[in-house]
Amino acid sequence: MSAPDATALATALRRALDGRWAEVRQEVRAQLGEQRLLPDPDLTTEQHRDRVAHGMRLIADSGRPRTGFDEARGGRGDVGGVVTGFQMLGYGDLSLLVKAGVQWGLFGGAVQALGTERHHARYLEQIITGALPGCFAMTETGHGSDVANLRTTATYDPDAGEFVVHTPDAAARKDYIGNAARDGRLAVVFAQLVTRGENHGVHALLVPIRDGAGAALPGVTISDCGRKAGLNGVDNGRIVFDSVRVPRENLLDRYGQVAADGTYSSPITGGTRRFFTMLGTLVRGRISVAGGAGAATQKALALAVRYGELRRQFTDPTTGDEVVLLDYLVHQRKLLPALATTYALQFAQEDLVERMHDLQAPDGDQPDEAAQRDLETRAAGIKAVGTWHATATIQTCREACGGAGYLAENQLPQLKADTDVFTTFEGDNTVLLQLVAKTLLSDYARRVGRLDPVRKVGFAAGLAVDTVAERTGLRTLLSRGDLRERAHQRRLLRACEEHLLAGAARRMRKALAPGADRFAVFNGAQDHLLQAARAYVDRLVLDAFAAAVERTEDPAARAVLDRLCSLHALTRLEADRAWFVEHGYLTAGRAKTLTTAVNALCAELRPHAGALVDGFGIPEPWLAAAMLGADAEAQRDGDALADDLAAVG
Amino acid sequence: MSAPDATALATALRRALDGRWAEVRQEVRAQLGEQRLLPDPDLTTEQHRDRVAHGMRLIADSGRPRTGFDEARGGRGDVGGVVTGFQMLGYGDLSLLVKAGVQWGLFGGAVQALGTERHHARYLEQIITGALPGCFAMTETGHGSDVANLRTTATYDPDAGEFVVHTPDAAARKDYIGNAARDGRLAVVFAQLVTRGENHGVHALLVPIRDGAGAALPGVTISDCGRKAGLNGVDNGRIVFDSVRVPRENLLDRYGQVAADGTYSSPITGGTRRFFTMLGTLVRGRISVAGGAGAATQKALALAVRYGELRRQFTDPTTGDEVVLLDYLVHQRKLLPALATTYALQFAQEDLVERMHDLQAPDGDQPDEAAQRDLETRAAGIKAVGTWHATATIQTCREACGGAGYLAENQLPQLKADTDVFTTFEGDNTVLLQLVAKTLLSDYARRVGRLDPVRKVGFAAGLAVDTVAERTGLRTLLSRGDLRERAHQRRLLRACEEHLLAGAARRMRKALAPGADRFAVFNGAQDHLLQAARAYVDRLVLDAFAAAVERTEDPAARAVLDRLCSLHALTRLEADRAWFVEHGYLTAGRAKTLTTAVNALCAELRPHAGALVDGFGIPEPWLAAAMLGADAEAQRDGDALADDLAAVG
Repeated sequence: MSAPDATALATALRRALDGRWAEVRQEVRAQLGEQRLLPDPDLTTEQHRDRVAHGMRLIADSGRPRTGFDEARGGRGDVGGVVTGFQMLGYGDLSLLVKAGVQWGLFGGAVQALGTERHHARYLEQIITGALPGCFAMTETGHGSDVANLRTTATYDPDAGEFVVHTPDAAARKDYIGNAARDGRLAVVFAQLVTRGENHGVHALLVPIRDGAGAALPGVTISDCGRKAGLNGVDNGRIVFDSVRVPRENLLDRYGQVAADGTYSSPITGGTRRFFTMLGTLVRGRISVAGGAGAATQKALALAVRYGELRRQFTDPTTGDEVVLLDYLVHQRKLLPALATTYALQFAQEDLVERMHDLQAPDGDQPDEAAQRDLETRAAGIKAVGTWHATATIQTCREACGGAGYLAENQLPQLKADTDVFTTFEGDNTVLLQLVAKTLLSDYARRVGRLDPVRKVGFAAGLAVDTVAERTGLRTLLSRGDLRERAHQRRLLRACEEHLLAGAARRMRKALAPGADRFAVFNGAQDHLLQAARAYVDRLVLDAFAAAVERTEDPAARAVLDRLCSLHALTRLEADRAWFVEHGYLTAGRAKTLTTAVNALCAELRPHAGALVDGFGIPEPWLAAAMLGADAEAQRDGDALADDLAAVG
Repeated sequence: MSAPDATALATALRRALDGRWAEVRQEVRAQLGEQRLLPDPDLTTEQHRDRVAHGMRLIADSGRPRTGFDEARGGRGDVGGVVTGFQMLGYGDLSLLVKAGVQWGLFGGAVQALGTERHHARYLEQIITGALPGCFAMTETGHGSDVANLRTTATYDPDAGEFVVHTPDAAARKDYIGNAARDGRLAVVFAQLVTRGENHGVHALLVPIRDGAGAALPGVTISDCGRKAGLNGVDNGRIVFDSVRVPRENLLDRYGQVAADGTYSSPITGGTRRFFTMLGTLVRGRISVAGGAGAATQKALALAVRYGELRRQFTDPTTGDEVVLLDYLVHQRKLLPALATTYALQFAQEDLVERMHDLQAPDGDQPDEAAQRDLETRAAGIKAVGTWHATATIQTCREACGGAGYLAENQLPQLKADTDVFTTFEGDNTVLLQLVAKTLLSDYARRVGRLDPVRKVGFAAGLAVDTVAERTGLRTLLSRGDLRERAHQRRLLRACEEHLLAGAARRMRKALAPGADRFAVFNGAQDHLLQAARAYVDRLVLDAFAAAVERTEDPAARAVLDRLCSLHALTRLEADRAWFVEHGYLTAGRAKTLTTAVNALCAELRPHAGALVDGFGIPEPWLAAAMLGADAEAQRDGDALADDLAAVG
């Protein structure tokens, strides 16, 4: 691979990464890049909240949030553009990203998606301009992942034509609610809807929580979650309702209506299906969190790679020169595979945003249920894998910068602290992967069910002999091909996915036996299910990266991306190589060569590390870090002295 | 295993963990447990520093630091006791732990170990009482790990009988120095000692940096490192010296003296040997950091396990009851193997402290060089592995508590932020493991060298055919034994250590060939060297755990510890199972059974999880967390409502 000009390469890489919403990215870079909306670690909680509130006004004034809403609101339904713009905030202050996500994504999105025309007409304009700050009050102290078992109640009183919203006990307290502790005026509250003595499950309704002067309304008790690990510019709070009454019209009634006399009706039959349809509106939040995590990871890598190219430590015994950190193999192994996977996840994110956009764009229409379900599964999986990757990578970047990485002035501590909660909010990652596994298993059962009887028997038989057949057929083939060949990498990941899924299906089938302890069967297979979900995501992500390589036209960028994609794929295979050997897809000897191959790719990509992080196109003011200025100069100044000392010694 | 009474079990476990310095632990529990020296996340940096300063006075008043010094200072040379007491501070505010470590461990320890009688007489009493706060000024902006290449100079001026301490450039600025930004008066400064035009390498000397009123002295410029990810109660700062003069007597001259006329002399021949002897005094700091990391890990696990036993989410389809998190297999897999390794590391820590104590106790004497070197190697390895384990485990504990784990009121954010730097300070972990590997290789070369010529050839031949012999002899044997048998677990880890070391030696031998690019050879093998070092530590840690099981007399505690030790060992083997299969020590089929065995052990140990964390004996006031109070009650209150709702729905 000839050495391309680094600046030209970075530009070409940025083009590949910017994708369909390149224009939005460029606009945000221009609009916000100069404003240095970085968190300041010396601010008190209240000062940080003020600063974020100021950032919210800047964003509102930019007109960007409006673009995501319908034309009726002066927008253009550019859901993909809004989520892309949102992701860009992840290069700045993640508190601002989350606060914006709460206001326009969760709160505004719920009014839009769960409400009907009268809610839209009455509230959306104020939500878009930020004049009406709101909350998305779903999670309770006692129930976060298990939304179906929330305990807040909304009981319809037909005499008054009102819902009575009530927190029956401490576990039902709304908790961790963004925008609640200080700014929120109106909340979308998720509660068990009870009318005529019947519980229709969780529904959302609008409950005012503060008056115009910011005081809590009667019956509403709000408290502050206090200091958090990070995101302290977001005012997370707790809300308790003491029989608070709201008009019947406040029910967001797109999927469930209550007539004046208390009669319940819904366009969706089946409580479970209705529940999941309503929850489906959360998909944008998950995709947004994955995007924000990606941006933060990219920024951490940009900081660490640049530092790794400046910082020298220890001397090459042959040349006598001090060696830059990124020339050490172990330093490359810390940063470059993580960089490769960060690219992979960005391409997967782009793919996800496109799918969401194309599905949601024809507004008002009910999206195709299968497509929606597929989107949700992808989003859940990529959110889980992407946010865990963020946590691990930002941690590694901090460590790769040593003491400098621990100082607030170099930004890494804030990135770590802010993103830490991403693995457990907007769906706990472990729970999300279980949801993914559940969907995969249902789809698998359907696929198997559709086969004709003869093939079905053959299929089942195939499953039964699975473990016996470990060293034959496909596996022999797979254990041979070229590990650096894309098609072979994909075949291996696909084989893993299929194998794990078939095995999981076999295990879960036991739960259907009469008298089976379903929980015990499920619980015993839980790690297997998570592995299957993980394999599915790995395959999706590699597919997205492979497609991105294919569509890249610039030859230099394409060559670098091709190697980067291999580095990503082989790092995944290397991490899971025990599984591949245990199940006969790789011989022990071949598995060993994975490490050699990863090391070789690190060496090949090392010269392009700088261009690869420049390719993210992070506004330079947002990458300010003392360690990248002073340290570099200091090192240069010092070289003269080292020579002097060497001469003296 | 019959179910022992949980309280009795916890007591017996605590006895096993408390070890030789049980009395010290009990004293610290009594002295500090009631004082609630917990960090308060709402404090500003200055307020936190004040609070830690207050804590320092409490510790000084307790008389504990004195016990670590010589009888001449009213102490009893109880180095082990002091390090043990220090570790206990890790249950409270880690800022206080680090500040105490700087004052009495690094600063006081350096004066004691590198100074001579006149320094001891003049300074130690004030250091012990805290009246003279000091710094350990080693690290510079440009050089941290590579101490030999520090750039600060101390040039002797025979006419004045003074050393001129100077910071020649920005890279030579002393950086990250604890106690420097606010409190320190006197600093142990590491600098290149130049006399009569000759550089004798890095030495330490005492340099006053502030006057009695706290103002920086002439020629000394001090700045503040500012906000950090954590440990904000410690005033880390930067010091620049502009030709600051100190009397000749300020050289800490135990290992290197400068006569009035500038003649240099040393009891240790060879600059490198002298350098490493001086650095050897750092061993206590590393052991202390490993201890502090262990305490913080234990506390995080105590919080997460207790939460996992209270928090319920999702319903068992058979019973209809909500399931506590710790009954889920994946939750057990998150916490219980980490708990097992935390026990293992605590026993390894105890072993390390004992070795250090026994080596250093006969004060004044030069310790046996081989024993000192062995101690340093163990300390470096255990510090690296232990602090990485802390970082990973505390992260997992945070995630295992979901949103609650992100709130400061539940302590986990502070634990995470404070301990984060442990992986890179007191020796960067990656560099430490390289040092370990280097020592192991030297020892290995010596072992091989001592063999008689015939055996030597045989040995080398054995190495050469190593890869061919993969499925024979020892390996066949190893691939069979019972994985739950301790001796077998140890044999596997030993085989791994030996194999990796032999391979590393073979690779490094290439560097000795004439014309070899030594850096390239070293760099290409760097990941292999780190693996070898890691295997060595794994073996040490398992040995320490196994020995602890053997000496535990209480049968219930012993039975639990025995399983816990297996869980630790099998988790390690499971993580590295690809290596064992690739090198013929485990068959693919056997490797698969490791996961089953780990899952089974998790299930067996699940009932004892509470007793296992109670066994750490962390003072209850230090485990205060809102999620363990309110949430539990709320959940109970809420159960009645759930029934009501179920009845309604």
